[in-house]
Amino acid sequence: MTLSEFDLIQRYFQADTTRSDVAVGIGDDCAVLRVPAGHELAVSIDTLVQGVHFFSDIDPYSLGHKALAVSLSDLAAMGATPAWVTLALTLPHSDPDWLKAFSEGFVALACAHQVDLVGGDTTRGPLTLSTQAHGFIEQGRGMRRSGARVGDLIYVTGTLGDAGLALRAKQGLYQNTQDASKLMQRLERPLPRVSEGRALARLATAAIDISDGLAADLGHILKASQVGATVDIDRIPLSHAVRAYGDETGDWLLALSAGDDYELCVVVSEERQREVEKLAASFQCGLTRIGIIEQESGLRCRGADGRLLELGVCGFDHFAGYET
Amino acid sequence: MTLSEFDLIQRYFQADTTRSDVAVGIGDDCAVLRVPAGHELAVSIDTLVQGVHFFSDIDPYSLGHKALAVSLSDLAAMGATPAWVTLALTLPHSDPDWLKAFSEGFVALACAHQVDLVGGDTTRGPLTLSTQAHGFIEQGRGMRRSGARVGDLIYVTGTLGDAGLALRAKQGLYQNTQDASKLMQRLERPLPRVSEGRALARLATAAIDISDGLAADLGHILKASQVGATVDIDRIPLSHAVRAYGDETGDWLLALSAGDDYELCVVVSEERQREVEKLAASFQCGLTRIGIIEQESGLRCRGADGRLLELGVCGFDHFAGYET
Repeated sequence: MTLSEFDLIQRYFQADTTRSDVAVGIGDDCAVLRVPAGHELAVSIDTLVQGVHFFSDIDPYSLGHKALAVSLSDLAAMGATPAWVTLALTLPHSDPDWLKAFSEGFVALACAHQVDLVGGDTTRGPLTLSTQAHGFIEQGRGMRRSGARVGDLIYVTGTLGDAGLALRAKQGLYQNTQDASKLMQRLERPLPRVSEGRALARLATAAIDISDGLAADLGHILKASQVGATVDIDRIPLSHAVRAYGDETGDWLLALSAGDDYELCVVVSEERQREVEKLAASFQCGLTRIGIIEQESGLRCRGADGRLLELGVCGFDHFAGYET
Repeated sequence: MTLSEFDLIQRYFQADTTRSDVAVGIGDDCAVLRVPAGHELAVSIDTLVQGVHFFSDIDPYSLGHKALAVSLSDLAAMGATPAWVTLALTLPHSDPDWLKAFSEGFVALACAHQVDLVGGDTTRGPLTLSTQAHGFIEQGRGMRRSGARVGDLIYVTGTLGDAGLALRAKQGLYQNTQDASKLMQRLERPLPRVSEGRALARLATAAIDISDGLAADLGHILKASQVGATVDIDRIPLSHAVRAYGDETGDWLLALSAGDDYELCVVVSEERQREVEKLAASFQCGLTRIGIIEQESGLRCRGADGRLLELGVCGFDHFAGYET
């Protein structure tokens, strides 16, 4: 009898299954879990499909990391504290080396956030991963998309456009990229802004994580909140590589349109500006004010010269995909 | 702008999103959910892959039904009360008619069990569905696989082998099937034994749902409980069609080895026999005693003549699959 894939994955997790709120973990019909009193449960499920969300040559460690990272990023955007994860893994064939590396990537990020794998399954088929993350939010304290109000300030964590630039380089659309391996890390091993999201939860009026590009994701906040916004393009935080790319190509919209950065976009009332910026001083990734919420619907982008730009940009299109 | 697939699915659900324990449903980064005091959360995620778990010609209504049914069946096996579901749907292309029928099948079963769709996503790729069901269990009352003790009695709900026979007929391995459409219903639209599982939870020492075949799934109970068992083959409840198949072919092991019936296998202490059988009188699907838990490890099957049978049977093999 050979070990099933899930037994193998579980083996890599066993040492780390230590949460006292897991009454029944992997190995029964259901996991049985305990949400702490006074808290709500936040859940988010995300699917990664080969050729759509990642290249077929992605190393399995990175894929394991990313499968968990994208779901933790959704928890971060609600200000939730991660607790448990389930994994539905569809594999074309059984490969213990691949599974070992995949599990190591998944486990390393899970450990970093004290997350237990509590269930899942493996099936035969084209490489597809669905990960559901579960976290806790103090009753009524979750950051929603719908709370932005006119006059609120718009912030983003980290830098934007890095994953998008890595994707362009990978697709052969841009060469001469500075910091190529660092950019590839941003694409393949995004760091969910969990601690930042938790810290911001008591201050923000709205939040979202940037998976489809700032324009698309901020657009979701604007729509849910029934407001508009203006973003100052030259305030958007950029890495050296993306700045060099902009200098060279004149394409300053990459940071607005490219997805996969998994930074947070957070909206804060003006009265909270000092408090938020003081808090953000402790963020290793930084937090940058980039714009303001307005009454007029739609998203406007202002160039360095103060003029509004024509935007034909949109977020990540699944039909475009990662096929090479 | 066209509606995304998930918007379409959501539209079919909207009328039915009525649970007061859903603080935030579809449309934000996470769903935010409330588990009632004194209860634990049971979760189970299952994936269905075309060609592995269903034929490519399955009608979308049935597929929607089955995607939810298999996850609810896991909740049933724990004795949990279903509450919420998330759906990760990977589709090769966008087809509103297909989505409408799929959603109707999913919604009909969800409504029947007062289950809300609280989140999910749709992605582009080979047809794959991951469904996570969430339910409640009174603190410490979940039926586990590990509680069976020597002398306990083994019961199953419904009849076994129907889905397996439908599969054989579909694969052209058996003809002249009685009740062909009824059998196909059993394969494509299994009814999760949710109310039966809830009722049995206060009485059973162990339980599992039969997805991979009685031998394989009862085997999981035996392994987790570190016991063995003898099952009386002629006590296994059979439909007319499976009985006729056995009469004709001499293959009486189908009911032991074929999966996909999604009945429950439940273990009960002898002292509870009268109580359980009285309770089961109200089960429309019936509940049949088929065997006994023993000290000697392994699963033994006894024929009508009292002799033990040689078993080369095993559960559903994912590598065999549904490819035609």
